[in-house]
Amino acid sequence: MAESVVHISSVGTALPGPAVTNAELGAVLGLGPVFEQWVDGFIGTKTRHLAIDLATGEVRYSLADLGETAARQALSAAGIQAGEVDVVIMGTSMPDSLLPTTVNLIADRLGIAQVPTFQIQSGCTGAMQALYLATRLLGTGGHRTALVLGGDVCAKHVDLGIDYAKLPPSEWVNTVLFGDGVGAVLLRAAEPGQRGVRLNRVLTTFTGLGEAPGQRVEWFGLRDRGEDLPAVQEDYKAIEERVPVLALEIVDELLDGLNWKRSDVDYLLPPQLSPKMTGRIVAGLDMPAAAEIGCVERTGNTANALPFFQLEELLPRLTAGDRALAVSVESSKWIKGGFTLEVL
Amino acid sequence: MAESVVHISSVGTALPGPAVTNAELGAVLGLGPVFEQWVDGFIGTKTRHLAIDLATGEVRYSLADLGETAARQALSAAGIQAGEVDVVIMGTSMPDSLLPTTVNLIADRLGIAQVPTFQIQSGCTGAMQALYLATRLLGTGGHRTALVLGGDVCAKHVDLGIDYAKLPPSEWVNTVLFGDGVGAVLLRAAEPGQRGVRLNRVLTTFTGLGEAPGQRVEWFGLRDRGEDLPAVQEDYKAIEERVPVLALEIVDELLDGLNWKRSDVDYLLPPQLSPKMTGRIVAGLDMPAAAEIGCVERTGNTANALPFFQLEELLPRLTAGDRALAVSVESSKWIKGGFTLEVL
Repeated sequence: MAESVVHISSVGTALPGPAVTNAELGAVLGLGPVFEQWVDGFIGTKTRHLAIDLATGEVRYSLADLGETAARQALSAAGIQAGEVDVVIMGTSMPDSLLPTTVNLIADRLGIAQVPTFQIQSGCTGAMQALYLATRLLGTGGHRTALVLGGDVCAKHVDLGIDYAKLPPSEWVNTVLFGDGVGAVLLRAAEPGQRGVRLNRVLTTFTGLGEAPGQRVEWFGLRDRGEDLPAVQEDYKAIEERVPVLALEIVDELLDGLNWKRSDVDYLLPPQLSPKMTGRIVAGLDMPAAAEIGCVERTGNTANALPFFQLEELLPRLTAGDRALAVSVESSKWIKGGFTLEVL
Repeated sequence: MAESVVHISSVGTALPGPAVTNAELGAVLGLGPVFEQWVDGFIGTKTRHLAIDLATGEVRYSLADLGETAARQALSAAGIQAGEVDVVIMGTSMPDSLLPTTVNLIADRLGIAQVPTFQIQSGCTGAMQALYLATRLLGTGGHRTALVLGGDVCAKHVDLGIDYAKLPPSEWVNTVLFGDGVGAVLLRAAEPGQRGVRLNRVLTTFTGLGEAPGQRVEWFGLRDRGEDLPAVQEDYKAIEERVPVLALEIVDELLDGLNWKRSDVDYLLPPQLSPKMTGRIVAGLDMPAAAEIGCVERTGNTANALPFFQLEELLPRLTAGDRALAVSVESSKWIKGGFTLEVL
């Protein structure tokens, strides 16, 4: 079987509701004006979009709702019919249900069936994991057109009944950092040398041997959860220390595999935990010539959706010969992720 | 890149605790002696193993615990070191947490790192989905040795505080049907024609376009769950109607792709919802010459783990030239799954 290359045909994204400012968020959480200054100084995120209506607590958008919108946008942008898609892969950490999987609910709404569908349980590197699998499925001739999605909706973990003013920032910082959203790309198998946006390398590497998780997200079934077990935990100290180091390793590994130099990269898509954190990471990557493509200031950390929002910014800017490199780190149990693309 | 074939090197399995008989289960659930007769007559399952201690409610085994045991058994049986594994893929519907993923906790315990790891969110066809991806990753030379796991632990959905005697069978039948367990196989890339157990075809096809889910499994975060939303729901009428039809389609699709006749198949690994249900499915498949390989009477429906328990029964019986065909249906949103293997 002849090996194909993989092209990115289009991208689509979906954000729920209007942008929520820090002032609006602070008001709902009962945090005073100092909150806004604190967010500006230490986080840098300006807005995010939420599937939950902050005024009523009502969940207005499911992950499937957003996924359907993003996928339709990607299909439309590429001029590809749903019936042409022959494999669907989605990454998420917070599916609408455990079963049926959200990927199948989205496929159903789009009218995609009689094809393999996969849902990857993943954190911030979910897009990279899904792209990795898609490139292998397309690259060997077995599949021709892949719909790849990534996204998260945090609604099940938001508790508006808490008096946040009595809690330290560590208890509500996730509410500031994270936003809801879904992204989608269409990938197609192409002939080597064919013109297009070639996804030429994808990296996803579990690297947390013996390390404590940097992030834990629990789920509960029928059983009452013990009060001693918080649903979401982050070790931000570990994240601040490890992510810049891992980001550097990712850049080196991607470049080494392609024989590219740092100066060959025109666009850099760095991790998007928060604007402040991204700034520190980028400073350490030593790629001053690469234009930085980010979204976190506007979207918050949309986890599995982040690289799609970055691709949405990137694709219209690309011209022939351009090279881009994306970096993603999952702190859950430490996964290095990334990809490179090149316009042929 | 030369195409490789994929061989099954070994299988390992893990069941928690001792076998729980119907009499023991009936006693704990407060259901009378008629319960045992009802199970014998309508279900047929004799025993299952549970991660939860029925006497105390204590969760004694996690999915990661069982996965580690199954994987170690598979590694040992194949004489393969953990360091040789270059990709890990696991299917489960009920991971220990949303993050970190259970596949990474298991990889960590085994000492496997610096490789891609994937966790597929899936129901009864999870093993097929994981095998499908593994065969693509191994088949193109990029990877050489895959550890593939599948399993489920139902502990979070078991509520021992309910008076089951007051409820109709539809409210507790899942407790009878399902069991906990994990299975693992090691797959290796081989040269075409090389002797071994060749996994020559894997099928996973989403087929539920426009159909209502046959199974729903919810998860809960911080938010209180509404009392009107049961955590686990099955539409057994739809399952009884659809699964035999889909099983027949799976057999036909697998055979067509290989130019095998029904009579070429020496061993049949049918779906394992319950012994009674399996009997009805097998009767409709018209493969009287194939020896049936099952496990459900002993293990209950272990969902993502089932095909591994069947492989554990099958592998020691295989001799050169033997052909086997496995069938699996996921009722969540209707997925057709299966594989064939042949001893070269």
